[in-house]
Amino acid sequence: MLKYQQIATEIETYIEENDLQQGDKLPVLETLMAQFEASKSTIIKSLDLLEKKGAVFQVRGSGIFVRRHKRKGHISLLSNQGFKMDLEDFQITSEVLELDLRKPSEEVAFNLNMKQDEDAYYVKRIRYINGKTLCLEESFYNKSIVTYLNNEIASESIFHYIKEGLGLKIGFSDMYLKVDKLKEEEANYLGLEKGAPKLTVETIFHLTNGQPFDFSKVTYNYEQSQFFIQANSHFL
Amino acid sequence: MLKYQQIATEIETYIEENDLQQGDKLPVLETLMAQFEASKSTIIKSLDLLEKKGAVFQVRGSGIFVRRHKRKGHISLLSNQGFKMDLEDFQITSEVLELDLRKPSEEVAFNLNMKQDEDAYYVKRIRYINGKTLCLEESFYNKSIVTYLNNEIASESIFHYIKEGLGLKIGFSDMYLKVDKLKEEEANYLGLEKGAPKLTVETIFHLTNGQPFDFSKVTYNYEQSQFFIQANSHFL
Repeated sequence: MLKYQQIATEIETYIEENDLQQGDKLPVLETLMAQFEASKSTIIKSLDLLEKKGAVFQVRGSGIFVRRHKRKGHISLLSNQGFKMDLEDFQITSEVLELDLRKPSEEVAFNLNMKQDEDAYYVKRIRYINGKTLCLEESFYNKSIVTYLNNEIASESIFHYIKEGLGLKIGFSDMYLKVDKLKEEEANYLGLEKGAPKLTVETIFHLTNGQPFDFSKVTYNYEQSQFFIQANSHFL
Repeated sequence: MLKYQQIATEIETYIEENDLQQGDKLPVLETLMAQFEASKSTIIKSLDLLEKKGAVFQVRGSGIFVRRHKRKGHISLLSNQGFKMDLEDFQITSEVLELDLRKPSEEVAFNLNMKQDEDAYYVKRIRYINGKTLCLEESFYNKSIVTYLNNEIASESIFHYIKEGLGLKIGFSDMYLKVDKLKEEEANYLGLEKGAPKLTVETIFHLTNGQPFDFSKVTYNYEQSQFFIQANSHFL
């Protein structure tokens, strides 16, 4: 972790520990420079990172303010961290239903930019929140990138393993959301009735070099899930 | 529009017009500097903006590459532009059901950071896509910020009016998503059956100075809507 990332993390901890609320003002640049023993440009990089992450907003000529939404228990759709970080107060567990190597379908090969005669890891899991079904997940990993997986890894955080175990750098992702009615198999897994509402989130995760390595379809139990997204002004 | 924003728009047009695909490499910095007659720092600012917007990704030591998702007809959840820009090939129209000034409920006052004895504009609209119901929208605007609204404005783009007509600077937004079953009134408006799936998106839009000015609840017709989100590596 680079110094400005480290400082950004410490500022986030400071906001958390002091229970600062949306609109609360952060100390001025000079104070932060002294507090973290860092140069102006490092502090500015830290603040830019926090702004991108939606933790602060900067008002020109006025200061840096805390951005903190007011609702608890929402899953962040923009975090690649998986659920573990977003739902900290909750107990998330996984049950691995299937894990094997297979040849990708045309759809999977297209989304992972691979050929159909190459190998992909397939993982099917149910994830639970406080003992209730949160979602059914089917993921495909390009084996030439994610070279190894097993049940023990899949029952924990696969992303943690990809980053820390395989040393891969996870970059951007494209997500597609669709609401529909649960099919019978999905309803059985989630413990809901066939035809009940579902949210399906398809995500293509890329490395920082642009290679797609994970194509996942997650079907959420609508009774147990709600989501939030922080959007920034640069989308204007 | 500042010069780097102008250049960013032109690079986006270039990507569009040349039908560049995900992973295609952009010209090197020096070429862009010559092409747009701009300094290195301006081009870098343009590219950073495009990266934030999810239009390009930068690979250190390797270059700048196009980011472009492969699916059409999805509503971007991160754009504050409203639908008009995202669903360009589609015809979006609005029918204003109600528009009045009222005192906000406790929930609305809380989300808009206003007092319950202050005034808010209330707008209820149905939006149509190619003649079919896309969503039911209820929005509350803090009247001390959005000082005037009428039917003609509400039947077009309210955000366009807020920016161009009132000269307000729209900043960040917090969005909350929840899937559930349609209530009878919602189902009637959307032309669906009671109990059919729905996606409700609640958004609090803020000015660049952090003031919330619009609290909206949008209920989507699941048959007519699908969404996409581009996430960046800084969320790691």
